[in-house]
Parts: sequence; C-alpha cells; structure tokens
Amino acid sequence: MAVKVGLLGLGTVGAGTAAILLDPAGRHPLMTDIEICRVGVRSLDKPRPVEISPDCLTTDLESIVTDPEVDIVVEVMGGLEPARSLILKAIHQGKHVVTANKAVIARYGDEIFTAANEAGVYVLLEAAVGGGIPVIQPLKQALGVNRIHAVTGIVNGTTNYILTRMQAEGGDFEPILADAQKLGYAEADPSADVDGLDAADKIAILASLAFGGRINLADVHSEGIRHVSAADIAYADQLGFVIKLLAIARRDTCPVSNEVLDQLELRVHPTLVPKSHPLASINDVYNAILIEGEPIGQVMFFGPGAGAGPTASAVVSDILSIAASLKSQGAVTTQAPNPLLACTHQHYCKVSPMADIVSRFYVRLLVEDQPGVIGELGTCFGNHAVSIESVVQIDLHNGVAEIVVVTHEVLEANFQTALDQIRAFPGIQTVPSVLRVL
Amino acid sequence: MAVKVGLLGLGTVGAGTAAILLDPAGRHPLMTDIEICRVGVRSLDKPRPVEISPDCLTTDLESIVTDPEVDIVVEVMGGLEPARSLILKAIHQGKHVVTANKAVIARYGDEIFTAANEAGVYVLLEAAVGGGIPVIQPLKQALGVNRIHAVTGIVNGTTNYILTRMQAEGGDFEPILADAQKLGYAEADPSADVDGLDAADKIAILASLAFGGRINLADVHSEGIRHVSAADIAYADQLGFVIKLLAIARRDTCPVSNEVLDQLELRVHPTLVPKSHPLASINDVYNAILIEGEPIGQVMFFGPGAGAGPTASAVVSDILSIAASLKSQGAVTTQAPNPLLACTHQHYCKVSPMADIVSRFYVRLLVEDQPGVIGELGTCFGNHAVSIESVVQIDLHNGVAEIVVVTHEVLEANFQTALDQIRAFPGIQTVPSVLRVL
Repeated sequence: MAVKVGLLGLGTVGAGTAAILLDPAGRHPLMTDIEICRVGVRSLDKPRPVEISPDCLTTDLESIVTDPEVDIVVEVMGGLEPARSLILKAIHQGKHVVTANKAVIARYGDEIFTAANEAGVYVLLEAAVGGGIPVIQPLKQALGVNRIHAVTGIVNGTTNYILTRMQAEGGDFEPILADAQKLGYAEADPSADVDGLDAADKIAILASLAFGGRINLADVHSEGIRHVSAADIAYADQLGFVIKLLAIARRDTCPVSNEVLDQLELRVHPTLVPKSHPLASINDVYNAILIEGEPIGQVMFFGPGAGAGPTASAVVSDILSIAASLKSQGAVTTQAPNPLLACTHQHYCKVSPMADIVSRFYVRLLVEDQPGVIGELGTCFGNHAVSIESVVQIDLHNGVAEIVVVTHEVLEANFQTALDQIRAFPGIQTVPSVLRVL
Repeated sequence: MAVKVGLLGLGTVGAGTAAILLDPAGRHPLMTDIEICRVGVRSLDKPRPVEISPDCLTTDLESIVTDPEVDIVVEVMGGLEPARSLILKAIHQGKHVVTANKAVIARYGDEIFTAANEAGVYVLLEAAVGGGIPVIQPLKQALGVNRIHAVTGIVNGTTNYILTRMQAEGGDFEPILADAQKLGYAEADPSADVDGLDAADKIAILASLAFGGRINLADVHSEGIRHVSAADIAYADQLGFVIKLLAIARRDTCPVSNEVLDQLELRVHPTLVPKSHPLASINDVYNAILIEGEPIGQVMFFGPGAGAGPTASAVVSDILSIAASLKSQGAVTTQAPNPLLACTHQHYCKVSPMADIVSRFYVRLLVEDQPGVIGELGTCFGNHAVSIESVVQIDLHNGVAEIVVVTHEVLEANFQTALDQIRAFPGIQTVPSVLRVL
C-alpha cells in the first residue's frame, strides 16, 4: 500500500518536492510507493509548475492534517503561524511530519518534539539546515557515535554570496547587498539573513542534534555582517584570512585545565578564517558544515544551501526515511520508534555567556598619528592579559593612522574591558571594526 | 536487552571499534545498549590497547559467527579469506554483518548481498569507503531520491598524500613514495594504493549504491600514479591544474544527443583538476567524494579517509543503525528489512568501454626541435576530430623540445588513434605522459 503524503504549501520548495515525487523513475525504488494525496495552497487558480490533480488541491489546510488517509504531513509553507499549529495538529492526529521550517523548529522545537514523542511519530527536518546537504541525518546517525566537540558552519547562502563578492570585487556591503536583492539572492527585507538570525536558527538546530540537548534560541549570540567593510576584508586578506559569517556551536573547555565542560558556546558572527581552513574556500551561495569529534576528527559537508531542487531533495529524503520505516513495520503498529529517527533528548543545554568564551580578535582603530599610541594600546591590552599576535599601522592622512591588531586567544571579557578603556584614550578617534578570528 | 556484537579481528580498526563501544558516555544514548560479547583474535596473549575480558577472546572465529548469542558480526580482519567465508557463514546463521572490507565487498558483493537478502539480514559497510566520512549511508538514504549523474572521489589517502607532497616539494614519485613508506603512509608493497586498485574497489562500491546496480570489478578501468612526474605537476600547475588520483563513476550521455544513457563510465586515473574545483583543494591523506545529481546539484563529503579512529567511527555507526532497527523492532521478528538499510538491486550495470568515453586530455611529448612539428601534431589530431585547447612548447637542449598539449573534450578512441600515429612520427622521441583532464 502506498504511503500517503499531504503537502502544506506549493511554493518553490513545495513544487520542487512534488516534482520529485511525481517523477520517481531513476530514483530510489521505494519512491514509487509514495503518493501525494492532498496539497494545501492559498489559491486554487494559480498556475503551477507541476501537474497536481485538482481533486488533491485544497485551501483548507486543517483538512489535510486531520485527513485519516494522510500518513505524512509535509510542511513547506514557511513562517511561524499557522505552520506551528498545523504541525502540532498533525502530530496530535498521529501523523509523521517533515518540515523545512528552521524558524519554527528553532523556536518551538521543544513543544513539537515533546508532542511527537508522546504521539510516537517522527518529525524530520533535513531541509531546515544546509538546503540539500545531508547533515541532519548524518548528525543523528553516522556521527552519533562520536563525542562531538564542535559544529562550525557557513549556513546562510545570502551572506556568503555578499561576502564572496565583497572579497572578489573589493566592494562595500551596501551596494553589493542592493545588487544581491536585484538578482534575487537577498530578500527585500534582508534582516534575517544579514543580521545573522537565520544562521542562529540553524546553529541552534545543529547544536541540539550534535550535543543531544534542547537549545534556547535566546542563548545564541548573533552578530550580522552589516558592519564588515571592504577595508576589513582587505586587511584580512593581507593577514592571510577571508571573512565568513560562521555559525559556531562548541563544547566549552576549561581555559585552565583544558577539560571538556558540560556547557556550550553558541554564536554567529563574521569571522576571520585562515585561508588554509576548509571553510575558507566555500564561496557564493554554497553552504558547508564542519563537524569535529572524537574519534572521527574533522568531516565537512558541502553543497547548495538553498534553491528549490536541493531543498526539495532534502524534504523528499525525509519522506523516504519515514516511508521506509513504515514499509518495514508493515502491519505491525505496536513497534517502537526508531531511536535514530526520533528525537528524545529533553533537557536544555547550558550555554556559556559570551564574556566567558576564548577567542582570537581582530580590531581596527583610527588613531591620531602621534608617538606612543601603539605602546599605550599594547600596555592596556597587556594589563588585561590580552596578548597580541600582530599589529599593522598604516598612515592615512591629516595626521590619522589606522591600526589593525590581531590578538592571541584571550578571554572575551578581558578583551572587551581592555577595548572599553582603549576607546576612551584621548588619541583614539574610532574603533570601526571588532571581529573574531578562528 | 542489549544488542550483542561479535568482533572478528582486534587490529587497528578492531581495537578502535572496541574503544568506542567500551566508552559510550557522551555518545548516542543507544550505545549503552550495545555490548561486545565475543572477540576473535589470532593470538590470545598479545597485549591490546583496549581492555577486553579474557572470557570474550577466542582464536576460533567460526565459533563467533555461529554463536546464538551474537546479533551482529563485525568483520574488521581484512583480507579476502577467511573474511569472505566468515561473512557468508554469519549471514547464513541469520546474523547482521558490519564490515570495513572493501576488497571483499567489491569482489564478492554479489554473493554476499544475495545471501543477505535471502536470510533477511543487513550487511553494512560505511567504513569500506572514505574512512570516517559518512558517504555510504547518505548515498543509500538522503541522496537516494536524486537521479545521480556522477560520483567523483579522492578515495585513496596514500596516493593523495604522495601527490600533495609532489606538488608542494616539486619532487618525483619514487623518493616521496619511499619517504611515505618510512612514515607509515604507504605499505611496504604499495601496489594496491599507487596502482589505483584500492580506489577501483571503492568506486565500484560507490557506483553500485549510486546507480542501484551491481558492478563487475573487472569493468573498472584503473591507472595508478607511478608515471606521474614532477614535470607533469609543474606544467599542470602553470596551466591552472593540480593532479589528483580520481575515482569516477558517471552515467554516460550520448555525445550527439546529450541524452542520458543506461550505462556507466567507471574509471580510476590521475587527472588534471582545475584549481577552482572543490576536489582540487583536498590534500594530504584526506578523502573527499563529490556527488552530482538531479535535483540536488553538487554535494561533497570531506574527511579523514583512514586511521583507526575515523574508520572505527564508521564501523560503529553501522552497528548503531542495526541496533536501532533491532530496538524498534522489539520482539517482532516477522518484520520486513528496512529498504534503506538493505541492498536489493540484483542486475549488473552496463559499463562503457574506455574507447567510448569523452574526456579532455593532457599529453607531454619530447620532440626534435625542428620546424613544422607542432603543425604535424595539430594536423594529425585534427584529422581524428581531436580539437586542441592549448599548446605549450619549451625548448630544452641538444635540439630537443618539450610540447604539452591539452585537448578539448574528445572521444577517447579518436584521441588514442591520433596519438598512436603521432608516436610513429619521425620527429617524436617519446611521449612520457598522457593524462586525462577533468
């Protein structure tokens, strides 16, 4: 008997999903056993890129999540509501759920997975992070035998596209954002992307899987790329770095004993990445996720982070996983959920405040070009245990010099205290950029 | 009830596997339900890096595969026999099997998977390709919804290490091989690695999964890296390429209509890879596998291709998958195998002869430095529909010049015919290198 899918939404991802399911030849043989039986849309009359029988279409989305025929509800409508309510209603009706909705999962994952566990159904979300890149499944399955130390990702295609172009063209943020908007690589309201909020949603989801605990989204420190300038990219380049918006989840270690602690660092910020690092060469709209653990070392997954086809590939792969599980279960309904598909952890992860993290820093200062400024800077940093790796001073004009400092690994609290004092020095005009260094 | 594992072999990978299983804290919670109950070794007295109860150890490997207690037999002994016979015996006893043995699977996969399907057991082999990199599971599961067009991999760490050093140092093959042997990166008998045989085993396995058919290992065309010289690497570098040993499985397209055909190209050979290609920056002993399909586009998996820890991570991930399936099955024994874990295809893939493939070529010739040689070369290539992309001529000494030709995409048969004629030209001294270009 075919596994029956109810699709909520027939936009870009929904239509891509339908296109794969309606054309199973040459794909996994099990796909011929999956059938789209209901599709929820906003308007019945809109022309569609895929052929869906008009009998399947409805504007009544609730009728899909309550339809006894439907085995799997696929939520590809986006937005917080009614997506969240429909997902919860589907779960309460005993339906498995596949969703591409990172925003809903990052905010309401707690409620949704608690409900799913009670109902004994799966909620899968491969498409929520990294578009088509299989990363959720490997984290839950193949990599689950490792003790994960860190997940570091370029998980937002829009900002990676903008930074790649800033790097290639030497251009500034605003005009390239405007061009990206014209070309469809950035939204009219670009805030979710360029302010790091989309990446924060995604790293919260990845961290939850990697570290086996729930994440409070408010615990993710998030900085965007609006303040990254062409000057910073040029200095970084000279120093052997590229600037990327990284989403980082890392198990904390004690700075003294180096012992691994039971708390996490969770942060999204533009970062100077050494050019030899595997993430440095991930360009344009591509995404990549680097996972480090014991005993595996480093593995990286790279691919298209967005787009109808790749995202639909991830959605359908989740549908396939559930269909395979249902097929193997057969008529047996007393079966326990597969622990590699289910999400059972219930505690919240403890997250370190930013003041406690250890990082290298890049700071660019405009100073009055007078003797002793570098000495004062160095003394102040030294007084706060901030050890300096390199200093570059460039004389600009009108008696103004630009100083770029890169520190060794230091405690964030110490660095920020030193920087606050430095900002108040009489010779310091402005501090246009403070960035972290990987 | 715990899932019970019988381990065949306690060498590097076996000890790594035991180390993970014996120390489950901080890994997937299900790992606490997995227990090593039998371990087969050659000598009982040898000191081991892991603590295994002496009661578990035995030199009688047959007794493990027939032990009614054992749920999963893990073959990490390597070699063709007795590994193959023990795997088959385990299957006939109704045991699931996890193996890291690419050589056995590439040669006897047919026999093994037929037996496994009859017995209703799983044979999983994540560790057989790409060490710790999860690539088998994603190919069978997340990527299975795609129509795969090509799998292109750097799947042999030894040759990648040698080629990376040749590139970095400008050195020749032999001395770097000798050094790699001293450092433990190459075997005393390096043939399986440097002649491309190990990569051939691996691409046969990947192709079988990607294209859903069995592969006759003899159909994989395999060339090693012994004839790659420092001169070739230097010319390639000037032309914008690095040389990598690639393993390629690709669905053939008709050169005229561009239609996708139901036959494959399967080949392992040193290849000029454009520096901007994602595989070009995979260095040292790292492996990477690039998968192209519809609608996903390109995804790449990167990580450590060998080593006790990474390989053991892959072995244990397979054990975990089977344990999860057994746990979810509970007391129900009539359940059908999960179609995403099982391997059900039975037909053999049709493989194109090398003469029919289309590729770019790089050829280096030593010629007598006399007028008209390039003209003669060009005419001969032209007569066989071999279109030339670039020609470089360097005057050496004693009236000898070196010519490097890179062609456009041409039919291999045409290129080889032209080259045979060129070899017979009176002005041609030798043709030291013929390499393919990606």
